[in-house]
Amino acid sequence: MSGGAFVVFEGGDGVGKTTQVARLAAWLTGRGTPHLVTRQPGGTPVGSELRRLVLDPAMGHVDARAEALMYAADKAQHVHEVIEPALLRGEVVVCDRYVDSMIAYQGAGRALDIDDVARIAWWAVAGRRPDLTILLDADPADAVEAIADKDRLEGAGIELHRRARRFFLDLAAAEPDRYLVLPARSGRDDLAAAIADGVARLLG
Amino acid sequence: MSGGAFVVFEGGDGVGKTTQVARLAAWLTGRGTPHLVTRQPGGTPVGSELRRLVLDPAMGHVDARAEALMYAADKAQHVHEVIEPALLRGEVVVCDRYVDSMIAYQGAGRALDIDDVARIAWWAVAGRRPDLTILLDADPADAVEAIADKDRLEGAGIELHRRARRFFLDLAAAEPDRYLVLPARSGRDDLAAAIADGVARLLG
Repeated sequence: MSGGAFVVFEGGDGVGKTTQVARLAAWLTGRGTPHLVTRQPGGTPVGSELRRLVLDPAMGHVDARAEALMYAADKAQHVHEVIEPALLRGEVVVCDRYVDSMIAYQGAGRALDIDDVARIAWWAVAGRRPDLTILLDADPADAVEAIADKDRLEGAGIELHRRARRFFLDLAAAEPDRYLVLPARSGRDDLAAAIADGVARLLG
Repeated sequence: MSGGAFVVFEGGDGVGKTTQVARLAAWLTGRGTPHLVTRQPGGTPVGSELRRLVLDPAMGHVDARAEALMYAADKAQHVHEVIEPALLRGEVVVCDRYVDSMIAYQGAGRALDIDDVARIAWWAVAGRRPDLTILLDADPADAVEAIADKDRLEGAGIELHRRARRFFLDLAAAEPDRYLVLPARSGRDDLAAAIADGVARLLG
């Protein structure tokens, strides 16, 4: 591949994305492949400020549409400032969460129409699709045991996370060539090996 | 009208919106009509922060889509936090710039598709339309003489402002019952009287 490759990790909280992003980066380093590790939301100065604003209690109650639009702005800036330039340099971009997460949590989980949220999110990123999305799949009831910040997951409601999981799995089923679905409860080494295999196939 | 009324001022920079908003507020006070004066962008804490972010040189180059989405988020929060509650209290809301300005400056003036920007802006405000839009119309070449910050207008390019003017006039022509188009170079007192007449008709 001459123009770089765009690899995204998706999945609920507590499924081990951060660990596997680091493992993939180490594998890419080992084989001498130029790469960039980044994340959404918050991968740019603008994005970090937007994330801070959404979470700042001093801002009062942030409207659901305003929140979705701020996350969409984060994505727009991130693609423009970080992802596209790295792809143009021919690098493998590894991104922790992307558009699917925004749709899952802003659309599938809330009062907003999911098709509206999807349209805005894809407009924000100017249609830039991942070449490969690695979905680490787990039952939210199991994942909750794995994360320190249980209040966050439980506070948001397990049902939200169940809907998000179904949404991720439906997307993956609709585009099996673009998605690599792996059971998040596999051993870390087995997962890392399966992910490296998938990325090796992508890079050809 | 039992449910309040939503009056918006639109027009280019330097046409005298601020003066006429204040004159209308004074007229409403004089007749004992509960009202709220507000503005976009920046009518809420979230909106003020978003506006600051867009203009902050430390944020680097803000992508056009990110900027449009941040202005849309400002609108969403403003409608949710300020405009709808005031209308529910039965007040007349007088707003300095609204969705038309966003479409004119983010869509008509830039690389973005104007229909996309319009769709996002109207989604942001959950479809809340003004009951009356007062368009203060002037040739940008005349308006530029009237404002202190000429660099801003000239820096953005007079052609952008010409396109915005045409866009405003086209909207007004398409919905003559919703728009009151007034020549901005009329005397201030004549303008204030014409605006008061228009709002009096709206309030019945």
